Amino acid sequence: MYRTHNCGELSQKDIGKEVILSGWIKRIRNFGSLFFIDIRDYFGITQLIIYKKSVKKNLLLSKESIIRVKGKVVERLSKNYNLPTGEIEIYVSHIDLLNSSLSPPFTIEDKTDGNEEIRMIYRYLDIRRDPIKNNLIIRHNLTLETRNFLSKNKFLEIETPLLINYTPEGARSFVVPSRIYTNKFYALAQSPQLFKQLLMIGGIDRYFQIVKCFRDEDSRSDRQIEFTQIDCEMSFVEVHDILTFFENFIKHIFKKIKNIQLDSFPCISYYDAIKMYGTDSPDIRFGMSFVELNDLTKKENINFLKNQELVIGIKIRKCIYEKIDCFLKKIENKNFFWIKYLYDQTFLFSNQNFLNEEVIKIFIKYFKAVPGDFLFFSYGKKIKTREELGKIRLRIAEFLNLKNPKIFKPLWITDLPLLEWDEESKKYKSVHHPFTSPKEEDIYLLKKDPKNIRSKSYDLIINGIEIGSGSIRIHNKNIQNIIFKYLGLSKKEIESRFGFFIKAFEYGVPPHGGIAFGLDRLVNLLEGNKNIKNFIAFPKNNYGKDLMINAPSFLEKEKLKELHFR
Amino acid sequence: MYRTHNCGELSQKDIGKEVILSGWIKRIRNFGSLFFIDIRDYFGITQLIIYKKSVKKNLLLSKESIIRVKGKVVERLSKNYNLPTGEIEIYVSHIDLLNSSLSPPFTIEDKTDGNEEIRMIYRYLDIRRDPIKNNLIIRHNLTLETRNFLSKNKFLEIETPLLINYTPEGARSFVVPSRIYTNKFYALAQSPQLFKQLLMIGGIDRYFQIVKCFRDEDSRSDRQIEFTQIDCEMSFVEVHDILTFFENFIKHIFKKIKNIQLDSFPCISYYDAIKMYGTDSPDIRFGMSFVELNDLTKKENINFLKNQELVIGIKIRKCIYEKIDCFLKKIENKNFFWIKYLYDQTFLFSNQNFLNEEVIKIFIKYFKAVPGDFLFFSYGKKIKTREELGKIRLRIAEFLNLKNPKIFKPLWITDLPLLEWDEESKKYKSVHHPFTSPKEEDIYLLKKDPKNIRSKSYDLIINGIEIGSGSIRIHNKNIQNIIFKYLGLSKKEIESRFGFFIKAFEYGVPPHGGIAFGLDRLVNLLEGNKNIKNFIAFPKNNYGKDLMINAPSFLEKEKLKELHFR
Repeated sequence: MYRTHNCGELSQKDIGKEVILSGWIKRIRNFGSLFFIDIRDYFGITQLIIYKKSVKKNLLLSKESIIRVKGKVVERLSKNYNLPTGEIEIYVSHIDLLNSSLSPPFTIEDKTDGNEEIRMIYRYLDIRRDPIKNNLIIRHNLTLETRNFLSKNKFLEIETPLLINYTPEGARSFVVPSRIYTNKFYALAQSPQLFKQLLMIGGIDRYFQIVKCFRDEDSRSDRQIEFTQIDCEMSFVEVHDILTFFENFIKHIFKKIKNIQLDSFPCISYYDAIKMYGTDSPDIRFGMSFVELNDLTKKENINFLKNQELVIGIKIRKCIYEKIDCFLKKIENKNFFWIKYLYDQTFLFSNQNFLNEEVIKIFIKYFKAVPGDFLFFSYGKKIKTREELGKIRLRIAEFLNLKNPKIFKPLWITDLPLLEWDEESKKYKSVHHPFTSPKEEDIYLLKKDPKNIRSKSYDLIINGIEIGSGSIRIHNKNIQNIIFKYLGLSKKEIESRFGFFIKAFEYGVPPHGGIAFGLDRLVNLLEGNKNIKNFIAFPKNNYGKDLMINAPSFLEKEKLKELHFR
Repeated sequence: MYRTHNCGELSQKDIGKEVILSGWIKRIRNFGSLFFIDIRDYFGITQLIIYKKSVKKNLLLSKESIIRVKGKVVERLSKNYNLPTGEIEIYVSHIDLLNSSLSPPFTIEDKTDGNEEIRMIYRYLDIRRDPIKNNLIIRHNLTLETRNFLSKNKFLEIETPLLINYTPEGARSFVVPSRIYTNKFYALAQSPQLFKQLLMIGGIDRYFQIVKCFRDEDSRSDRQIEFTQIDCEMSFVEVHDILTFFENFIKHIFKKIKNIQLDSFPCISYYDAIKMYGTDSPDIRFGMSFVELNDLTKKENINFLKNQELVIGIKIRKCIYEKIDCFLKKIENKNFFWIKYLYDQTFLFSNQNFLNEEVIKIFIKYFKAVPGDFLFFSYGKKIKTREELGKIRLRIAEFLNLKNPKIFKPLWITDLPLLEWDEESKKYKSVHHPFTSPKEEDIYLLKKDPKNIRSKSYDLIINGIEIGSGSIRIHNKNIQNIIFKYLGLSKKEIESRFGFFIKAFEYGVPPHGGIAFGLDRLVNLLEGNKNIKNFIAFPKNNYGKDLMINAPSFLEKEKLKELHFR
């Protein structure tokens, strides 16, 4: 028997019991004739007190070795009230070395001296550290809570195939050569998109799946080539139904996992998001939405500015202090200016021709600024101006420490454009995917102004990060064909890429829609948005390599031959 | 709005309500000025009554089309008490055709006229049938129950990578060419074996994962190239702990999913299973274990038989009836004979020289047979004799209808051999895998008699089907190296195949072991063990093809080039 108790459960009520514990040696302190060992397992740490005479002479005890001890639970003299087991210790009568350990290549403590690379190579040692272990526990709790919540709400978890067909669409797929069918390949599914829609066509009312997805992407620090999605789909719903249901889902998760009660999620259109924040994934933990100043500059006849396509500004309250000058110097945009309203009621402002006392007072009045406030402005072409001030807004928030990782502000972005123009192929392509439904009232724009057609799509943004994305799908064959036409697909191409799916459209497709959440991102966000890799047991590095097992690697010639290569 | 209620929830208490329902047309019955429609969705079926005058003239209503109706819940005249909604119907005031349907290629009813191929091609229509839909629901319930049970018992679900490294071991792996690393490949994980062991080394006490696994196998009707495992591992345990825990797990699942209280699982050694049933996966729903007759034949000096290496027999109670002659004719084994004890107290027996009245009476007495009983015998070399009678035993059970799919008789088979001799490579290979622990008391056999070393392994067999398999793993570096040596691996080979894993053995490996259950098989077994494909939403056919999406398929030249082929 390896243990009667684990290393995290003994307390005062157990004093006097004979116990057996097993675990890793976390710490050894030598006091001549006796020594103390902290023994650690998954559940906690327990202090052992050992007299040298009771230990075999050649027993080599070192950190991270595994021991089994027999002994009596006794009250500790100097109690440690921070540890659940801190009021007792084990007076050891017998000790076995179950396995020895070399000195680990980095410190196995909450704060480690190991860099990312060495921690990846020895990932199993990294997992012994509480921060990584706790991340895996939170991930487990999050997925279990998700499954129970969705199941209670009549969703069925259904596995869809990972070995599917290659389609030259969107992101790159990994492929898998078939040994049996010479020169043929499977592809690894990038998402269950078409399969979940087929389940709706198959009469499954509500589907979900926590599922591995694969994308052959070039290196990015916040993406993995295999990642996990919470994938959902519902029948007989409109946008409103989905937003309502999944707002409750996200609220439930935050309440259960973080004990945080989220406010109602604001819902703003893509167009408004760009207008107010210069981005389709705004961080709304801090206000600072854009104020449009074109009417003002015209009315007040402010030279130069009054002729700009767009002038926008934001006010930051009470933010004047020394270091901000240093911050301002780093902003290199030309079409940017600022006004500091000092506590002595004077102004400082950036070096622009059109700025003078009079103009400044107009702005100060318009923004109802008070001493201590700071105004930032941007002007020029609409798209660029918004984008630039959007970036500056985020940098200010960063600088002023307004991105509090303990505050969570979700919002829905809706009505994203259906199509975007692709310069390379000189064609329209889908913003989401070709099965996203347009808004009925915009269909008339197909001929005149395709890029202004809004779709029935939505993103869930939390603290500036896209956590979920989805849409109502097209269920009408005619609309589907019109969209395909505008994507420049010939009948032949449609048949070869989506033939099986189009066929299904002949047999009673229900109205349906869904959403997918990035699990890795969501759990990372919950814990302060630091590094996705810390929430994956065995992550790949930013270049798609597994440093621990050294994958990918070369194949033996025989295997290559079996797969009909060379 | 598509619906106020679903098609399975309205009953007498709703009479008088104005409702909206959406669903598929299951049946239309025309009565001149009015007609009845059965409308179906995921939740059930509701009867609609529609007067022709309230329907637009050009509305084409056909089976499997989707409609939305508005109407009033009224009491039905001829009630159908078999349907939850059978006491009401909807008096329809308005009907919309949401989507039309072609006539489906096979009948969408519990009993269908579609063969397997056509049902695979139109799998989304097959899923509309209750038998397939209900299978998916049971699978969902089983996985949810599994997750909650294991989580309550301190198991963490942890995802392990699917894109791993190729090792030329055991079954064939699929490989995935890397685009970024020229000529390098990932492999698709056949199971999380090494990763779950690394999690134990990483201090995770109890792990599980319901996980997709991939094996590039040749066609077999009960296997899929992608399949799902309930994969589990525990630290600081011995065989006994694992069998006890997972016996409770399986009992819990049967109770929750099938409301069946299973008896205690017998636990017999591999050696005894072969001896008693001629197989390592015995079906013990019916008795008929082998009786060894060598002592008897020697004592009674029965010529010919007394010189055989093995003589075994089984008795079947009260099984004599007409058709059994036809069954007996089909048994073509030479070393097989039988005795029929007729109700008139006479005997019939197979045509063998050594059988006569005297010998027959010896067997009848030894087996305590009574009129109506049947005795079957096999003799010859040990291994073959057991194997042959084992097969006949199963065929008799089949013939006599003793394989009751509603009875479940699990048992544990333990102490499987560690090594088996591979004629092809002229080497010993692992029966389970090279990390399976031998029994300490057998290690001395390594030099003398390796194939008789028993391992700390176990299979869970239910009704003759292997549902789970696992072992205690080696945690001692020295034993691991000895095993490697006996598998004929050089130091170089060990390093290149298992280098990262062997490295982990230097850093405090806890004693650990685990088990994996085949989810597809388990859910199939629960429902009577018919066809695994009926429990997978989108299965591949027996040759690894997805008939619906037509995978695998040829790749475009550009894609091949990108992957550095040709």
